[in-house]
Amino acid sequence: MKDIRGGVCAPKGFKAGGVWCGIKKSSQKRDLAIIYSEKPCTSAAMFTTNIVQAASVIVSREHLAGSIARGGGIQAVIANSGNANACTGEAGLSAARRMAALTAQSLSIEPDNVAVASTGVIGAPLPLPVIEEGIKPLAAALTADEAGHSAALEAIMTTDTRKKDGALQISLDGVPVSLGGMVKGSGMIHPNMATMLGFITTDAAISRELLDKALRRAVHLSFNRITIDGDTSTNDTILIMANGEAGNSPITSENDAYREFSAALENLCIALARKMAADGEGASRLLTVNVSGAAEERSAEILAKSVASSSLVKAAIFGADANWGRVLCALGYAGIPFDPSGVDVSFASAEGSVGVCRAGEAIPFSEEDAKRILLKEEIEIIIKLYDTKSYDTGSGKAIGAGSASVWGCDLTYDYVKINGDYRS
Amino acid sequence: MKDIRGGVCAPKGFKAGGVWCGIKKSSQKRDLAIIYSEKPCTSAAMFTTNIVQAASVIVSREHLAGSIARGGGIQAVIANSGNANACTGEAGLSAARRMAALTAQSLSIEPDNVAVASTGVIGAPLPLPVIEEGIKPLAAALTADEAGHSAALEAIMTTDTRKKDGALQISLDGVPVSLGGMVKGSGMIHPNMATMLGFITTDAAISRELLDKALRRAVHLSFNRITIDGDTSTNDTILIMANGEAGNSPITSENDAYREFSAALENLCIALARKMAADGEGASRLLTVNVSGAAEERSAEILAKSVASSSLVKAAIFGADANWGRVLCALGYAGIPFDPSGVDVSFASAEGSVGVCRAGEAIPFSEEDAKRILLKEEIEIIIKLYDTKSYDTGSGKAIGAGSASVWGCDLTYDYVKINGDYRS
Repeated sequence: MKDIRGGVCAPKGFKAGGVWCGIKKSSQKRDLAIIYSEKPCTSAAMFTTNIVQAASVIVSREHLAGSIARGGGIQAVIANSGNANACTGEAGLSAARRMAALTAQSLSIEPDNVAVASTGVIGAPLPLPVIEEGIKPLAAALTADEAGHSAALEAIMTTDTRKKDGALQISLDGVPVSLGGMVKGSGMIHPNMATMLGFITTDAAISRELLDKALRRAVHLSFNRITIDGDTSTNDTILIMANGEAGNSPITSENDAYREFSAALENLCIALARKMAADGEGASRLLTVNVSGAAEERSAEILAKSVASSSLVKAAIFGADANWGRVLCALGYAGIPFDPSGVDVSFASAEGSVGVCRAGEAIPFSEEDAKRILLKEEIEIIIKLYDTKSYDTGSGKAIGAGSASVWGCDLTYDYVKINGDYRS
Repeated sequence: MKDIRGGVCAPKGFKAGGVWCGIKKSSQKRDLAIIYSEKPCTSAAMFTTNIVQAASVIVSREHLAGSIARGGGIQAVIANSGNANACTGEAGLSAARRMAALTAQSLSIEPDNVAVASTGVIGAPLPLPVIEEGIKPLAAALTADEAGHSAALEAIMTTDTRKKDGALQISLDGVPVSLGGMVKGSGMIHPNMATMLGFITTDAAISRELLDKALRRAVHLSFNRITIDGDTSTNDTILIMANGEAGNSPITSENDAYREFSAALENLCIALARKMAADGEGASRLLTVNVSGAAEERSAEILAKSVASSSLVKAAIFGADANWGRVLCALGYAGIPFDPSGVDVSFASAEGSVGVCRAGEAIPFSEEDAKRILLKEEIEIIIKLYDTKSYDTGSGKAIGAGSASVWGCDLTYDYVKINGDYRS
């Protein structure tokens, strides 16, 4: 498995592009993106769990089902930033359908081969005329190189301050297979997948069922494990398209090739998820919370999320303050039973690590060391749970094998600034 | 029902006091409080739901049960600020027991007639020697006037910027009966009752069962409906003591007198809860979220809490930004089913009200009016849910009679500042 360049254009047969069509005020910022495979694709997608769903989500869900029913899949996605097309009623739905139809027309494919994605302000009508005008130049801007990828990525960004993308190459029975991806999202990031758009391409040949399974597993371990502010958006979409251009022997069973592909997809998604957490609105630090020794993985995940989501913990991390009491407190209200006297906590970073709590109680530590560790950009909170009885006898045995890592960020002045007046 | 002065000293037979004993660094800030009734009390209490519980909570729970088992109740409470005595193991428990025992000794009552409460930093050992030294002067400082109340209240405050207290008088069959209360709490405030200490006194004569029932109902409608930052503390305690000194005919059934008493307790608790929300850490605005038309009260409460807890909504309120899309978004991820096209939203304050969303979609409104309304100190978000079918026919019928009000505050730079370095 190796990192490669090119993003969503790294896999064979994919093109991408991005233009400014006029949804965003400044023509310096692209706002309309496209990703396209000339060859038909196998595809899978996951959408927001919010009851209030953007028109783009409703239409993409329909198109995915429709194209699969016809034996095909999504082979192009059109995405806009600057407007979420959510809470926009019938007009919003018809605008999203029109976006797909015009894109399909310019690519000579069927409308339900096209997914639609939108991100931006909720409740404002989508400015359809400028999008209609923009689709032709957009289709004309499609290129198979990194510049196309980069233009598309730029066009889906909102409050993102960094580009979040990646690409990997693996070898399946000697055949090189690539995966590439881009994501946007920096606020409203909370399980599940909140306000994120994510598009992944691969030239692997793989059955729809297994592509779907691999995507769900990868999302579960990556995008569903990041939290910025606890809000779950109306527009989340993650889509994967596989066009089979690599020429590998098609993956149709859970064999070694599937495991290799699945692991690569998981790695790519975790890398993208970490980039998203590190670019949380106003974030100055990437926070990883690792819980081990819980009864089961799900319990570990809930406990870790409770810590990573705590405003008090996040504010302490911003202040580089080793306030582990807030960590214990957040564990305690997570709703998962555990023995509060069987908890060890330490803080770690590239500067080293420092134990701050053992058996649920304070242990002496150097505040100076802690400060130095916590001033780094990537911080880890390591939480170990165990059976206190076995601990007393010196074995410190974990309650179970449940462990999970969750990614988040600190809570800063800039988060408040960015969100105090986002619309203007 | 009328407001009176005197706080917890307003009801007959109660004394209070507060001193600085040395837990807090500055001698300008009191840190040890006492409230006491010379006559035995009927009492009831509620404690944190956090699994990690402070030593004071564990001991107070034991003492409440113990004193009730002996046919009595809590008739004194000793409380300290500056240290939470949580995550402090056996040493913490024994310190909390010692605080109760010394207090009991100085008042000539039994240790289990004394409740203990602590608030402050988690995980630091309680400085027992200074508390031991402080208890005698504290008991000597007890007075039955407003000054005693005020000193006690000051001594339980941490990051609170305002005193939060109140007192009411009602007439039960012509006999004047009083209730008084004080609360502290400004961060970690989230259902249920997080980081709050609340002490309520009354001279009503009432059975323990009914006092308990009235307290639970009042807390459910007040302290369990406020949210500052989503964190639930390890130390929450709310205690009511009733000494019967008013001389009313004892309340032993759910008669008119019970209903009157219960309504007064509810009013007092809601007034204190609103003061707590308005004094949320760094808060500049009190936010009331009112949901009506839900299937049941519990659903309305969950939906309202989701909105009042959303960092994005809170940041928008800070910015006086009528960003109603975030309100719909927060409703949508609350986990309560509703029809997103059957939602009306308006913003209100003393300046008037403005509808911003009807039937789940934008309606035209003056941003200028909205800004003027949102710049006030007390803001209300009014959310009405209804059955869209009946709405189409013009009746706009609510789905159900479930309604709830929840109180919160905005998310400000100061919240981050206060919590970024609380320990130092």
